[in-house]
Amino acid sequence: MWSGPINRREFILSGAGFLFQIGRIKESLIIRSEVPADFETPIPLLDRQWLTPNDLHFIRCHLPIPRVDLNTWNLTIDGEVQQPLKLEMQDIHRFRETNQTVTLECSGNGRVYSDPPVPGLQWEKGAVGTARWAGILLRDVLNQAGVKPTARHIIMNGADVPPGSVPDFVRSIPIEKAMHPDTILAYHMNGVDIPIEHGFPLRLVVPGWEAASSTKWIVNIRVSETEADGYFMRNAYRIPNRPVAPGTAVDPKDMIPYTALDVKSVFTSPLEDSTTRIGSSIELRGFAWAGVADITRVHVSTDFGRTWTAATLDADKAKYAWRRFRHVWKPTQPGSYIAMSRATDSQGRTQPIAARWNPAGYLYNVIDKVRINVQG
Amino acid sequence: MWSGPINRREFILSGAGFLFQIGRIKESLIIRSEVPADFETPIPLLDRQWLTPNDLHFIRCHLPIPRVDLNTWNLTIDGEVQQPLKLEMQDIHRFRETNQTVTLECSGNGRVYSDPPVPGLQWEKGAVGTARWAGILLRDVLNQAGVKPTARHIIMNGADVPPGSVPDFVRSIPIEKAMHPDTILAYHMNGVDIPIEHGFPLRLVVPGWEAASSTKWIVNIRVSETEADGYFMRNAYRIPNRPVAPGTAVDPKDMIPYTALDVKSVFTSPLEDSTTRIGSSIELRGFAWAGVADITRVHVSTDFGRTWTAATLDADKAKYAWRRFRHVWKPTQPGSYIAMSRATDSQGRTQPIAARWNPAGYLYNVIDKVRINVQG
Repeated sequence: MWSGPINRREFILSGAGFLFQIGRIKESLIIRSEVPADFETPIPLLDRQWLTPNDLHFIRCHLPIPRVDLNTWNLTIDGEVQQPLKLEMQDIHRFRETNQTVTLECSGNGRVYSDPPVPGLQWEKGAVGTARWAGILLRDVLNQAGVKPTARHIIMNGADVPPGSVPDFVRSIPIEKAMHPDTILAYHMNGVDIPIEHGFPLRLVVPGWEAASSTKWIVNIRVSETEADGYFMRNAYRIPNRPVAPGTAVDPKDMIPYTALDVKSVFTSPLEDSTTRIGSSIELRGFAWAGVADITRVHVSTDFGRTWTAATLDADKAKYAWRRFRHVWKPTQPGSYIAMSRATDSQGRTQPIAARWNPAGYLYNVIDKVRINVQG
Repeated sequence: MWSGPINRREFILSGAGFLFQIGRIKESLIIRSEVPADFETPIPLLDRQWLTPNDLHFIRCHLPIPRVDLNTWNLTIDGEVQQPLKLEMQDIHRFRETNQTVTLECSGNGRVYSDPPVPGLQWEKGAVGTARWAGILLRDVLNQAGVKPTARHIIMNGADVPPGSVPDFVRSIPIEKAMHPDTILAYHMNGVDIPIEHGFPLRLVVPGWEAASSTKWIVNIRVSETEADGYFMRNAYRIPNRPVAPGTAVDPKDMIPYTALDVKSVFTSPLEDSTTRIGSSIELRGFAWAGVADITRVHVSTDFGRTWTAATLDADKAKYAWRRFRHVWKPTQPGSYIAMSRATDSQGRTQPIAARWNPAGYLYNVIDKVRINVQG
């Protein structure tokens, strides 16, 4: 672990708990908030590879990163079960291992594009990343505890602790998603122990759903007849149950929890306001994802959205992971153009032209646009 | 003619010249400028009919409306011709009569939607209208004068006179468009003498081209080897010869004259931010036009631009006139939706999703959008 002298900034970043090695991270990522640690991946760094390296993966924390001691750590399963469990890490490793390559996206990714603006971290396009998570099936653990017929939800809590009057970050997911054979308790991220900022030693990974369901530093799973009752289920991570006019104040009771991700694509290259030359070929590329659905095609336009061409989808593929798309454009006329990308998924969904606005700026998935200047 | 007492406002509206009967017009139209008289048709008034009544047709003047006396009025044809002509109205009526139903649109219609904003009259959607123009073929007059082989353009001037240092409003069109069998010198608008504010007693009607080419109060046509040399050809009514980045200052020499209209559609009903109820059928309708091309279809979306349905095109049709489109929508869910319209023409052109910005805000033809609120 990191062992140099602690300067004030690094101490602040560690919050009330465990220090994480921020040397490379703080140079690479965009700091949206220092405490809690909310770091966005710059788009050029996402562009480099299909799997996002651990130290380039966006970081979203609601509370200070906790201190974790494996000697005392355990995961408890209680509530509507036949047999409550208290599992140490050696118990976790006795379950069969599995893995999933998953695109995790913050519900608020793209919030900065909300019009009118909405409060919250002003994420641009990079609060999303894809990693290969290894761990065990959550259902194997739940089956060992013996879920009662009354179970409808699981309520997850992490080792992170709220300071002062901040509400604890507690989320729940329906029992069906918890028992789904693809939902895992992960201990490895891209082949190594999960870094502390990503949930060491164990986190939930709920594939295809917004990232807030994938509880980090998980220490308790309570099987319940009802969903979690706190701020982060009753107020946050909810979207209006109908499209609302921009700027509307919506009562949380007229909102529903946001679960699976929508269909979306973003360009990773070129960047906004890039320059190229006529006669040169420029590769337009990016990623498209659709939560629990599959990306079936991505179309690209280079003429302000008048005409569209199917992009090539890379071979790299996993059930819950983004697809990289590519389209080579050879501009023949100088000028300033807008390239657009529009993904379509296996549920027939496609990206909208105009936003379905909501008070927290969740789900932003309007067709992506980048301006490209072509010199003569 | 109008004969009541003149109040100051009506006197101002008359400018330096002929008074026009503004009683109904000033109550119906949106005043964008009093002098010169620039009045926009409110969209609900456009919605009522395929042909726009004379007193509801938008008015665009660059200079004060001139005083016209038929006893002294004449039209001269000179320049690169075998035989210069001086025609009185009785001479005009000796040519064979023809007519054209034409959608005239101000080049700056929709300018208010430019982002970043641009200077000029801040037209919304209603600087457009359709009238049936009767008159004579311009080519018949030009043939009588005998156009020389050196002729490349005709330069048109009206009886309107610039005050002070304002440049005169003089435009030219290429000889091919002037000799086109659909280009007319009109004396009737929708069956009556052209109202003074629309060009009495004679105006050019250049079908399919931006309205600034259709010179009002025309008194001189000069056949020329070159296009007109003044402000309104060298500086105004020009668009960049390539798409430019928003906010760019573009040298007029890197611009080209704007001629034929682009493909466009606008909703005339419902209006922005309208309200309806689930279970009720609401008719979405509007007009689509494409200058010298034909409208082949109009698609409508009611789901933020994700999916599109072909609208019905009304039977009313003329070569250079807009087509009315209709689409019945029966919303089944409450909420606030965005309806969009997108026209496609016989040249394969379709409306863009994002604007090709230009310094004067000409040609705005992004797919139209109106918000519709559906109550439960």
